Amino acid sequence: MKPVAIVGASGYSGEELVRLLLSHPHAELAAVTSRQSAGQTVAQVFPKFAHHPRARALRFSEPRVELLAKSAQIVFLALPHGVAAEFAKPLLELGCQVIDLSADFRVKNPAVYQDFYGHSHPAPELLAQAVYGLSEIYRTEIAKASLVASPGCYPTSILLPVIPLLRAGLIRPDGIIADSLSGVSGAGRKAEMDYLFVECNESVRPYAVPRHRHLSEIEQELSLAAGHRVTIQFTPHLIPVNRGILTTLYLPPTEHFGDSAAMDALGEKISTCLQEAYGNEPFVRLLEGQELPDTKNVTGTNVIEIAWRLDPRTGRLIVMSAEDNLVKGASGQAVQSLNLMCGWPETAGLV
Amino acid sequence: MKPVAIVGASGYSGEELVRLLLSHPHAELAAVTSRQSAGQTVAQVFPKFAHHPRARALRFSEPRVELLAKSAQIVFLALPHGVAAEFAKPLLELGCQVIDLSADFRVKNPAVYQDFYGHSHPAPELLAQAVYGLSEIYRTEIAKASLVASPGCYPTSILLPVIPLLRAGLIRPDGIIADSLSGVSGAGRKAEMDYLFVECNESVRPYAVPRHRHLSEIEQELSLAAGHRVTIQFTPHLIPVNRGILTTLYLPPTEHFGDSAAMDALGEKISTCLQEAYGNEPFVRLLEGQELPDTKNVTGTNVIEIAWRLDPRTGRLIVMSAEDNLVKGASGQAVQSLNLMCGWPETAGLV
Amino acid sequence: MKPVAIVGASGYSGEELVRLLLSHPHAELAAVTSRQSAGQTVAQVFPKFAHHPRARALRFSEPRVELLAKSAQIVFLALPHGVAAEFAKPLLELGCQVIDLSADFRVKNPAVYQDFYGHSHPAPELLAQAVYGLSEIYRTEIAKASLVASPGCYPTSILLPVIPLLRAGLIRPDGIIADSLSGVSGAGRKAEMDYLFVECNESVRPYAVPRHRHLSEIEQELSLAAGHRVTIQFTPHLIPVNRGILTTLYLPPTEHFGDSAAMDALGEKISTCLQEAYGNEPFVRLLEGQELPDTKNVTGTNVIEIAWRLDPRTGRLIVMSAEDNLVKGASGQAVQSLNLMCGWPETAGLV
Amino acid sequence: MKPVAIVGASGYSGEELVRLLLSHPHAELAAVTSRQSAGQTVAQVFPKFAHHPRARALRFSEPRVELLAKSAQIVFLALPHGVAAEFAKPLLELGCQVIDLSADFRVKNPAVYQDFYGHSHPAPELLAQAVYGLSEIYRTEIAKASLVASPGCYPTSILLPVIPLLRAGLIRPDGIIADSLSGVSGAGRKAEMDYLFVECNESVRPYAVPRHRHLSEIEQELSLAAGHRVTIQFTPHLIPVNRGILTTLYLPPTEHFGDSAAMDALGEKISTCLQEAYGNEPFVRLLEGQELPDTKNVTGTNVIEIAWRLDPRTGRLIVMSAEDNLVKGASGQAVQSLNLMCGWPETAGLV
Repeated sequence: MKPVAIVGASGYSGEELVRLLLSHPHAELAAVTSRQSAGQTVAQVFPKFAHHPRARALRFSEPRVELLAKSAQIVFLALPHGVAAEFAKPLLELGCQVIDLSADFRVKNPAVYQDFYGHSHPAPELLAQAVYGLSEIYRTEIAKASLVASPGCYPTSILLPVIPLLRAGLIRPDGIIADSLSGVSGAGRKAEMDYLFVECNESVRPYAVPRHRHLSEIEQELSLAAGHRVTIQFTPHLIPVNRGILTTLYLPPTEHFGDSAAMDALGEKISTCLQEAYGNEPFVRLLEGQELPDTKNVTGTNVIEIAWRLDPRTGRLIVMSAEDNLVKGASGQAVQSLNLMCGWPETAGLV
Repeated sequence: MKPVAIVGASGYSGEELVRLLLSHPHAELAAVTSRQSAGQTVAQVFPKFAHHPRARALRFSEPRVELLAKSAQIVFLALPHGVAAEFAKPLLELGCQVIDLSADFRVKNPAVYQDFYGHSHPAPELLAQAVYGLSEIYRTEIAKASLVASPGCYPTSILLPVIPLLRAGLIRPDGIIADSLSGVSGAGRKAEMDYLFVECNESVRPYAVPRHRHLSEIEQELSLAAGHRVTIQFTPHLIPVNRGILTTLYLPPTEHFGDSAAMDALGEKISTCLQEAYGNEPFVRLLEGQELPDTKNVTGTNVIEIAWRLDPRTGRLIVMSAEDNLVKGASGQAVQSLNLMCGWPETAGLV
Repeated sequence: MKPVAIVGASGYSGEELVRLLLSHPHAELAAVTSRQSAGQTVAQVFPKFAHHPRARALRFSEPRVELLAKSAQIVFLALPHGVAAEFAKPLLELGCQVIDLSADFRVKNPAVYQDFYGHSHPAPELLAQAVYGLSEIYRTEIAKASLVASPGCYPTSILLPVIPLLRAGLIRPDGIIADSLSGVSGAGRKAEMDYLFVECNESVRPYAVPRHRHLSEIEQELSLAAGHRVTIQFTPHLIPVNRGILTTLYLPPTEHFGDSAAMDALGEKISTCLQEAYGNEPFVRLLEGQELPDTKNVTGTNVIEIAWRLDPRTGRLIVMSAEDNLVKGASGQAVQSLNLMCGWPETAGLV
Repeated sequence: MKPVAIVGASGYSGEELVRLLLSHPHAELAAVTSRQSAGQTVAQVFPKFAHHPRARALRFSEPRVELLAKSAQIVFLALPHGVAAEFAKPLLELGCQVIDLSADFRVKNPAVYQDFYGHSHPAPELLAQAVYGLSEIYRTEIAKASLVASPGCYPTSILLPVIPLLRAGLIRPDGIIADSLSGVSGAGRKAEMDYLFVECNESVRPYAVPRHRHLSEIEQELSLAAGHRVTIQFTPHLIPVNRGILTTLYLPPTEHFGDSAAMDALGEKISTCLQEAYGNEPFVRLLEGQELPDTKNVTGTNVIEIAWRLDPRTGRLIVMSAEDNLVKGASGQAVQSLNLMCGWPETAGLV
């Protein structure tokens, strides 16, 4: 059992990490920190985990870097952006490996980071060594990484479906539109009016239009896949569910398909492309036949569902994905990175 | 008080019509029919209306055309497509005016109807006299109509924002994308597995991709506004709220706006266009400043909220609308048509 | 049109008062105050009312007693307990009538108030003139009152069903149990963790067991009805709906009903008792036959639904009620008091 | 790995059994039957399980007793009452052990069964050998059973808290009141109007007042615990959550506690009683301090949370419990029985 720690474990992503790591067959949750919960046991803060003996024994502590480095080999950071980098730096220096769930190390270019996050990058010297933690795309790099920048929830739901199509040249990099619907846990455990039950229930609304921060990492990764600069349209919406992201992508195929033979041929290529990319991936479910993604089929799991349709009327490719924003979109894929870094089966603790 | 009737009043749109007409200052609900509820009072079928004396007095009857024509001057049809036309025909012959909430008279071309609805049109001879009941667009025609085809819920949320922009030449008619999110009442009061509480709650899902039936009327009306054939992309999603449609539109402006001066100039034109179209409309709320549409602000009202943003990164215009699918998207705008047809204030019974 | 004002109009009860008074046929909303919203129009703070011209014209102001007294004859206080009394006192001195939605003037005995609310009563000298604003019970007194203490949401759902039974001697005053389920708006518009969407959705929980503050007014009124001191059991629960209170009451009949004849006889008495008490009340719906209360039938209305069952197995009477906690349980019945105080039809602005 | 089968696996309880058994360390899901899903794989019927290889391999079949008996040693019946007994009989004759989740073998007295279920008992000769599957109470008997009658969801939430108190003589057997709130999955996966999303969302309602079928097994087991006939009051309510039962119990202590010393002494006895009964139980969480049960803390787990309060004002003991109706209230405790029957750790596959 390898000792791991979580810094900032009292938010929704932190809680989900706790859940996954309490049941992990090879990792042991050695420390959890939270300023507001320090002194309490994990079982007290999260009664739902109280049936785990470890949750009754382990107490939240104040976040102290030296203690963390002593007690754990790998440290998860579930902190706000800006703050995460302050912990990553000394932890790396003390020999820990770090899996950061914040945005701090996702964007390679500190100028882009500053542009989207509104403050200068807190540790630009670490950016070169950070690996973007999208396991299906960067498996090899993650396995050797000391610092993993775990992707955002929206980016995961967009990048996994689009990257293979872009790499295969099946879609044009211009004109990509991503329309995403997210559950309220995506806003974090924050006592703000906007996220009160009465304000969210029986409400559907867009927000951060037209420039959500996640665009910075989405466009970086799509540009890498396309081989040149990609700009996309992205609109997030808040939906009254606890968990889940449903993304609908409007994509321009490189080929026209004027008749049904051309459409069948293109469909065959898309199908092959996605099968080759994900046919053997344990956490990507390619839907067939009439099935369309539904967040309720992935909630609580590390699976992303993907389906697609060609529209002969408009010449467009519609791709839809569903994931649990807190699992595949956050803590689940962070554990997937952990498994890769430690040489464990990639599915350990995740099925 | 003018006597009106509702045929098929036991579904969600019918129920909403009952609510509005019970409180209408100039119309009297003279008859309501429903095969399954015949014999019961309105108060028994809809306990929430039981404090209205009329609801306690009025009984559902079997739908008999002659009786309807005797008791009412204007008849609302809240029936499935295909069935509505069967009632419209004799009612018109008997001298009634008809406001049909089904799809039967929305599409002018019976071949398009057959293509999208899967059966031949039941009364093509009536199509010429039917007026599409979008009050803000066809006010004059509705005022003189004997047969109004009240628009679908999705089409209303798309057409109202797009038509003025298209008419003004501010957007190109190709490349329009409409991404819509609807509450579950949109599926009707039908005992089907897919719409059970447990199947919808904590679920977000697209459906009818890429060819929902409402495309037929949306494209017809957009084509009329553009002056030539328009094809659009439309994706509906089912969201766990009772009521409300949120539509996000991705539109290509005819002008490029490479710098902020050009963007301001275009913004000014869009603002002016929408102000001219809707600045005095009682049921269109043009949002200003930072505000974005939210279905909870329109639920239970006949208002549609509209906001827009120009995205300098992609060169696109994003327009968002929110409406109550059962009111502005169905029964409310049907009553708006009624008011126009009778020469009453357009807001009668709606504020 | 009589000018009225609302102090503290930015909470959920205040918002509901605004809604009702904007449409009231005889009252004009002359002023609304709120420290946090001062300077904004009602339409800006509550976009859902923006189609009312008055909502676009009227601005929130800082709460200043002199200005309020100048602009309005009757002032509603939608403030926290303790604060309300500070406004009531000078407003009454300046000649206003006051309808207070807080707990400050509901409990006649300041010692009981202190015991339940944790601080000494802020204006005990006003208690003698305060009338408990339960219109169905204190109609005459309210009509002549200068200070109305509008009842709490839970008390309304309990008192209306129980008082007539107690007065008629049909139930024993000992052994009353009230089990209540409330929507989240009952907790007020407060940015607290406990009321976040994610914490309330898919959650059902009791709270304030066994001594909720509302017990003080419930027991006071039941004691008055019984003619001697009554102590009851009351357990509130938080349920993931925006609005609505469902109360299930377990009551000991004074008569045993060992056989079906005795049960029929007792049932007849209960039925007669409730019919006599409420048969002509516009806002009490006595359910018959198989019907049971359902909060969705009263949401948005000033109606309380009441049903009852005798259980021959246990010898108990089960009474159930459903109301909208923000309307009949708060702002609706406050407007009902307004109507009585002004000599308007009791249903004015409420149907 | 011991082969097990599920008959009637397409309902909510069946689905939950599938989930638990797919991950069970000692049991192998050898067969699942369902008339409506025959021919499809488990992964097709329940996409959320598709990442389990077994779910992709195993197909639903028609329910054939001989085949079931050949393929499995232990068979779970997730069928409607009346139907379950028809399968239990031949399966037992063919040497299978049976765990029945229906009501068919819960009530020992066939006359009581007929009284509550409205038809004569389909296999009274099997009643003597059936063991009521409440593991915490009948652990030894379940371990030796060939036929386990797994308890109903409401009874579990009532019996576990009450039985130890009754056995210890701390409460009187008369005057027990159980007020329960259940999520909609408790109604089963049935296409009925009453359980549509729109009919349940924003709705709270009692049902089956005053005589729900589950009273038959609740009273049987309470009578056994008390040593003589017990009759209780029980009111179920439907709440808009997918899962979870919250039960609030009003209990009359045998001792009066007029002063705080007496109250402390009684509290000590209650605490000791529950600690002795459940202090070492893996699936019972006795809450301490200020904590009260919340269904969101037990959803998806086999845990029941229990808290209690003495009310010095009324002399009553209030006990509250929370469970997942589909896990501890159905499939989870059925697997707990399986573990006992097979001599596996009681928590196998359940944590």
